[in-house]
Amino acid sequence: MTVAELARLLGAPFEGDADRPLSAAAPLDSASETDLVFAAGSKAFDQARESRAGCLIVPPDYPATGQTLLRDSDPRRLFARALALLYPDPPVEPGIHPSVVMGHGSILGEGSSAGPGSVIGRNVTIGRDSILHANVTVYDRVRIGRNAILHSGCVIGADGFGFAMDEHRRYVKFPQVGEVEIGDDVEIGANTCIDRAALGVTRIGDGTKLDNLVHIGHNCQIGRHVVIAAQTGLAGGVSIGDYAVIGGQVGVGPKARIESGAVVGSGAGILTSKIVRAGAPVWGTPARPLKQYLAQLGALARLARRP
Amino acid sequence: MTVAELARLLGAPFEGDADRPLSAAAPLDSASETDLVFAAGSKAFDQARESRAGCLIVPPDYPATGQTLLRDSDPRRLFARALALLYPDPPVEPGIHPSVVMGHGSILGEGSSAGPGSVIGRNVTIGRDSILHANVTVYDRVRIGRNAILHSGCVIGADGFGFAMDEHRRYVKFPQVGEVEIGDDVEIGANTCIDRAALGVTRIGDGTKLDNLVHIGHNCQIGRHVVIAAQTGLAGGVSIGDYAVIGGQVGVGPKARIESGAVVGSGAGILTSKIVRAGAPVWGTPARPLKQYLAQLGALARLARRP
Amino acid sequence: MTVAELARLLGAPFEGDADRPLSAAAPLDSASETDLVFAAGSKAFDQARESRAGCLIVPPDYPATGQTLLRDSDPRRLFARALALLYPDPPVEPGIHPSVVMGHGSILGEGSSAGPGSVIGRNVTIGRDSILHANVTVYDRVRIGRNAILHSGCVIGADGFGFAMDEHRRYVKFPQVGEVEIGDDVEIGANTCIDRAALGVTRIGDGTKLDNLVHIGHNCQIGRHVVIAAQTGLAGGVSIGDYAVIGGQVGVGPKARIESGAVVGSGAGILTSKIVRAGAPVWGTPARPLKQYLAQLGALARLARRP
Repeated sequence: MTVAELARLLGAPFEGDADRPLSAAAPLDSASETDLVFAAGSKAFDQARESRAGCLIVPPDYPATGQTLLRDSDPRRLFARALALLYPDPPVEPGIHPSVVMGHGSILGEGSSAGPGSVIGRNVTIGRDSILHANVTVYDRVRIGRNAILHSGCVIGADGFGFAMDEHRRYVKFPQVGEVEIGDDVEIGANTCIDRAALGVTRIGDGTKLDNLVHIGHNCQIGRHVVIAAQTGLAGGVSIGDYAVIGGQVGVGPKARIESGAVVGSGAGILTSKIVRAGAPVWGTPARPLKQYLAQLGALARLARRP
Repeated sequence: MTVAELARLLGAPFEGDADRPLSAAAPLDSASETDLVFAAGSKAFDQARESRAGCLIVPPDYPATGQTLLRDSDPRRLFARALALLYPDPPVEPGIHPSVVMGHGSILGEGSSAGPGSVIGRNVTIGRDSILHANVTVYDRVRIGRNAILHSGCVIGADGFGFAMDEHRRYVKFPQVGEVEIGDDVEIGANTCIDRAALGVTRIGDGTKLDNLVHIGHNCQIGRHVVIAAQTGLAGGVSIGDYAVIGGQVGVGPKARIESGAVVGSGAGILTSKIVRAGAPVWGTPARPLKQYLAQLGALARLARRP
Repeated sequence: MTVAELARLLGAPFEGDADRPLSAAAPLDSASETDLVFAAGSKAFDQARESRAGCLIVPPDYPATGQTLLRDSDPRRLFARALALLYPDPPVEPGIHPSVVMGHGSILGEGSSAGPGSVIGRNVTIGRDSILHANVTVYDRVRIGRNAILHSGCVIGADGFGFAMDEHRRYVKFPQVGEVEIGDDVEIGANTCIDRAALGVTRIGDGTKLDNLVHIGHNCQIGRHVVIAAQTGLAGGVSIGDYAVIGGQVGVGPKARIESGAVVGSGAGILTSKIVRAGAPVWGTPARPLKQYLAQLGALARLARRP
């Protein structure tokens, strides 16, 4: 693909050599003359100027350097779109692999695929154009929307963790008879677990993205366009509002509520029933406003240095 | 099923409308007229009074409200028993799925089932009435008791993590030739890993419940009726006594000992060879008595606020 | 095998009963008369003296006790070698199990095996004498070296976690078109996830060992002979130098750099772009030199005790 062709497909203006062929994308520091790269902001300008890349996607304030450029107000986003054009190979083999086991009453939407070794329980519905990678497990009565991506090893709909102690001091399983509902455009990382509700529904809203090895307990209610980084765990009954951003290795106690747009720093611990509001990021355990936590860390460091 | 039938099967007295049909169970706040609900304690009484549920399981001190009631000293436990009657569908397809691979010398007890994609190694024994969900992996020479539930993606008997450095500064694998023994009535969460012993046996006692994404290192000795919440990790050689309760995302160092009945708060970190006694919950890293930890958090907050 | 035969195969001198038969290895405290044991250092000498083991591997300064002994300057290492002789059974069934699915263009080296339920994508190369246990998933275009061991449930090459927000406030997937390259003699724990690079390569160097449930984000560069304990997570773009040792449940922020030989204590949290140098172990969140952290913990404890 030439620079001119790519620019036309992206609907973006270009400067420089229209006929330059592009065959791949690369990071700024290792690009060759047939690679597309991007510089998101002015911090990367110095490196961009020295790049040998065939074409650079840059913001409007990037100077005219004689390099071949595509300009856009959000270079990272345009680059993401360009990648889809430069790497047209399907990310997975289309269709349902013959090794997939699907239970009675389950439906996989048109254009969806299920990779080898995946197991889909009974009465599961999966919308159109969704991708289940290899070795995914979906238990009974789970509903998944359109354009979902489920990475390998994720387990959707296993029993929540609930027990009652009987008169002989033995734990008796609290039956987990609820369901899981996952919206459209959701991506679920490798080996992530989303438990079914004890009663009712565990919900993941449209557009939400979960990283690898995340644990979502029973009856959690996750809003739309939420991002949760790797190894974070939510106990039962946690609710998270739309557009919240949760770092990695965060622990959230039972029934805590993280409001829309709130930001939780990596490794933070949120106590049972705690409410986290938007406006200021929280960090630490127990989670507190970032500024307050940093002040405490500073005070502690000074205290320990005192003679 | 009518209220009278359910009451008879549960052996519990009821008040109100004997013929009312019940078809499902629900949370207090979303129940309809054919739903069974429960109110565990007085905190839930206000909500219970306004519930439209067909029948409520309540403690003895719940007032007579004209609602149809089942009374029991432990409403949550009775509710758990009722759920098993209201949802008689088997949680899994019975039997061994034809896709299951089982190694030489392995035995699956009567009434046990193994879901699609599960792999059972050589010389494995699994007792009666146990359930292996889909995509479970059991390595060679693992022993699992009766009534066990293994959720999808769990891995039992992988090698412990042990290496010696050789004279060329390369790590050499310390062969992991021990075994894993899991008792009766154990439940193991999705994607949880239990490593085999280097030598000897990694043991999980009867009635113990592990949540999702838990890591149990080689040679751990877990007692009976222990509860371990999600994403907790035990290094090698840890011992945990009966009835201990371990929160989520706890980290336990090599050879630490958590005594019977001890309680460890979520996110706590327990150092190598540390002994945690029962009596007072511990929290923080390094784990210390909860009261002491809270006093320290308070002192730090005051210190940082000082002008 | 007799003591004399074992000694000859190991090339180590022995004292005592040459003809004593050895059939197994055991821990010091539970060994019988046909078991081999080891005592790594003087702390274990008392227990060793009372051991009923058939033969003990001990360091040069262990006294002559009349027991049958093998002496070596590194008893644990010699014991590891002895284990391989005492337990010659192959750790896995040799060959590729018929249930393994392998994509177009993929190659598994001579002497390598792939366990039941494993799925290998397209254009994957795996070197000689490598072991993929059951239910391993390898995505497209991953390269794995010789003598690698991949434990069950690990997922190699899933998409990195990267999104851009579009003009409608929806997250758009940043295509993950990079690769994963894993060196020789690498061991990867059960249910561990190694994401492919967004662009370029996620690299794991020769001889590196990862425990269970570890998360390696996209574009990480892990050196040679690195050890990472269970449940540790690395965000995108982290680099770790040769011979670094990382404890369990460590969290490492994006683009942090852990230098060769550095030591990170379990549960530590390393901030974005932070550099951790060798020389002094670090601990805590944010990670700081261990000594400094312990001083702060001490100061805090004293502060809270003040009247």
